[in-house]
Amino acid sequence: MEIIKDYLYLNIARQFESQIRDGVLKMGDKLPSVRQVSRERGISINTITQAYLELESLSLIESRPKSGFYVCYSQKRNLPVPSPSKPPLSALHQLEEDLIDKVYDSMREKNITLLSLGFPAAELLPIAKLNKGLVHAMRTLPDSGTGYEPVPGNEKLRNEIARLSFSWGGNLKAEDIVTTPGCISALSYCLTALAGPGDTIIVESPAYFGILQLAKSLRLKVIELPTNFITGIELDALKNTLSKRRIAACVLISNFNNPSGSLMPADHKKEVVRLMEYHNIPLIEDDIYGELYFGSHRPTNCKTYDESGLVLCCSSVSKTLAPGYRVGWVSPGRFKDQIMRTKLHHSLSSASITQEVVADFLKNGRYENHLRKIRATLYNNYRNYVKTINEHFPDHVKLTQPQGGFFLWLELEKGFDVISLYEKAMRFNISIAPGRMFSLHKQFQNCMRLNYGMYWNKELEKSLEILGMLISKT
Amino acid sequence: MEIIKDYLYLNIARQFESQIRDGVLKMGDKLPSVRQVSRERGISINTITQAYLELESLSLIESRPKSGFYVCYSQKRNLPVPSPSKPPLSALHQLEEDLIDKVYDSMREKNITLLSLGFPAAELLPIAKLNKGLVHAMRTLPDSGTGYEPVPGNEKLRNEIARLSFSWGGNLKAEDIVTTPGCISALSYCLTALAGPGDTIIVESPAYFGILQLAKSLRLKVIELPTNFITGIELDALKNTLSKRRIAACVLISNFNNPSGSLMPADHKKEVVRLMEYHNIPLIEDDIYGELYFGSHRPTNCKTYDESGLVLCCSSVSKTLAPGYRVGWVSPGRFKDQIMRTKLHHSLSSASITQEVVADFLKNGRYENHLRKIRATLYNNYRNYVKTINEHFPDHVKLTQPQGGFFLWLELEKGFDVISLYEKAMRFNISIAPGRMFSLHKQFQNCMRLNYGMYWNKELEKSLEILGMLISKT
Repeated sequence: MEIIKDYLYLNIARQFESQIRDGVLKMGDKLPSVRQVSRERGISINTITQAYLELESLSLIESRPKSGFYVCYSQKRNLPVPSPSKPPLSALHQLEEDLIDKVYDSMREKNITLLSLGFPAAELLPIAKLNKGLVHAMRTLPDSGTGYEPVPGNEKLRNEIARLSFSWGGNLKAEDIVTTPGCISALSYCLTALAGPGDTIIVESPAYFGILQLAKSLRLKVIELPTNFITGIELDALKNTLSKRRIAACVLISNFNNPSGSLMPADHKKEVVRLMEYHNIPLIEDDIYGELYFGSHRPTNCKTYDESGLVLCCSSVSKTLAPGYRVGWVSPGRFKDQIMRTKLHHSLSSASITQEVVADFLKNGRYENHLRKIRATLYNNYRNYVKTINEHFPDHVKLTQPQGGFFLWLELEKGFDVISLYEKAMRFNISIAPGRMFSLHKQFQNCMRLNYGMYWNKELEKSLEILGMLISKT
Repeated sequence: MEIIKDYLYLNIARQFESQIRDGVLKMGDKLPSVRQVSRERGISINTITQAYLELESLSLIESRPKSGFYVCYSQKRNLPVPSPSKPPLSALHQLEEDLIDKVYDSMREKNITLLSLGFPAAELLPIAKLNKGLVHAMRTLPDSGTGYEPVPGNEKLRNEIARLSFSWGGNLKAEDIVTTPGCISALSYCLTALAGPGDTIIVESPAYFGILQLAKSLRLKVIELPTNFITGIELDALKNTLSKRRIAACVLISNFNNPSGSLMPADHKKEVVRLMEYHNIPLIEDDIYGELYFGSHRPTNCKTYDESGLVLCCSSVSKTLAPGYRVGWVSPGRFKDQIMRTKLHHSLSSASITQEVVADFLKNGRYENHLRKIRATLYNNYRNYVKTINEHFPDHVKLTQPQGGFFLWLELEKGFDVISLYEKAMRFNISIAPGRMFSLHKQFQNCMRLNYGMYWNKELEKSLEILGMLISKT
């Protein structure tokens, strides 16, 4: 019951919000009274009040004493979303490893504002609760977690992950899941098991560079397909390529894509799975951001529509709980034996105690509470980023409108060199992720990915302002 | 100073022990008095007394009141060591995965005496101290270890591993080391980085099946070379193969080999490294058992003699502290960049908090204390196994004489089928590791590996007796 109410107030808040963003409600406009909306929509006054408070917390509206609620948010303009990518068909492939290394290295320096990275700031993590869990796990786990896990991983954890799958329409059981030391290891096991050197895989464009690096390490060929920044990979391109080329696997991030932020609509997901089934090709799905939705409910993933076991769905708690715990998993469908074997051969098992801590955290409902908080924080951050970018970035900027996750994708005017912007920004202790990192082709040189999974404060705002200034001056 | 004295008393105890084992001192013989040995050898009475107490604790001698120390150990006979292996040159290769899976699965059943496995029993681990370390790490580590480690791993840990390298004549610095989630991951990174599908690697025969599995997963060809059960891989065979074939890498376990128990003599190690340098081929060394020596000092490893950076030395604390912590490392010599990249691409980083716990454990001298204990336990277990095998196994048994580590290798008479013995033993809840697991060829069918890294008690003794009975009856 409580959750349904939650959804309702968020739903209403989002409706008002898009009216404000679209200019239907303009700055200074008065909102209908709580009582009026309640009557018109047949929804309790409590719920409408909650919705208005939500809008107020986002600085979209303000309450004026004895008068009501007024729109106080002014979006200078609506920045356009970048056009769908059109990766060149050239055979010239080049992973920009030096650039990736350089951006990674900025992580180790102190006092850098890490707009470049893809993990949550410590302030967003429930560290005290995890520590309690650690002490508990130490006491309850046989031999305090010093022994090896069985190959599939901690059973309690697998059970909780199965339970969690209900929210995206999955119907998993513990035995459908294999734990892994993080999501990238899950992807590594999947690709190692399913694709051999010289084989070809399909990815989105832009693609998460970790997938490109893995492919390089395993000597796989990569085809980047045109991708829409709102709806993900272009279905026609996918269809076309699947019917023309021998493909070993597709690797997609269907929800709140890294880096594009795109959210594949449910019917696209269905169609992708249908295509995979038709061609009998495995789909490796990275759903690590799926829980971090801004909307009223968790989006499905491709695994939701997987009836033949061709989808291997990978995830972890590295974006929500504790990157350093190295707790991830894969539901490998019909490929379970291969995945278990690959896990066994390459790493035996993953760390016992951190799996147990996460299992307990998931078991006791703390995860849902925590997710609600981190979602709200990410959404607020996103709004703050958009506001700051609107105010301080030049007019030619194109900007994605993610509905969840960690990332904004910015496209600057043609010819703009983001790599030299990176160097300039680093002189101000600001690290960004240049778009070129996310492709094997020479594209996205005028793009960048910004991480808003940070702790929002004056300093962060200042960094964004400086970045905007540096862009304007170039 | 204390350590030097330690070595001395153990040295003396081992001298007496080999005299007893060789029959120079027979059952009932009186040992020279403590005072007499002290005078003759110019060693303090304290040290000699310690040596005698050590022999007594091994049930090799007994003290008779007001009379002195007498030999009370009777080795029925000296079982011969198996002859060096001669793996067939046939192209027929077959990894016995089903067998390996079956043996692994026995780990998950309850109340099985796991003579088949290769890790220390919980009773041998310093669990209470590790738990204290965990609480400490939780309190001192930034963000309680929820954040990512930098790619090379915990710096304190790398520093401690470098310090530890002093004992084998290594001269490592923290920057010479990359941490990994366990030793098998270290081996996986090395092979992934250095050998591609179709490439050929050299291993010992018998070989640790984990290496054979990894090679299969990476589609490598494997040459098993003749191996001596006392001195390890046969140098002539190695020399010969290196000059005739294109080899991508050698993978050797130079100290207390799994499964053969062999200890490569220092001059062999030198020669192996020289050969590798001559042919410019990397040597991946698994030194995971190196600290578990029965003698007076830690043996060197191949890395000790590595002047050109061709040796990648892998290890972990999985055999000494906590398998479930997944804390291992590699000193990759000149291949550091490739190894770091492979680690980054396949797993990003390893678990932060368990690395910190191990770093603290190593830092505060507890590791040395613990190693002293576990070495003594393993040695006692080994003696007890040999005694029980002597008394309850048939005459045709050949048995290795490991000088450290976890494993005894038994060779039964030609034609003996150890796989059917495995089935019989499992009916008595005893799991053994059939020799066939340790080769791609059809060999070692009459052999088995026994793990003595267990908690010695009446039940374990009984299991060994039953195993002997089952062998005798076949």
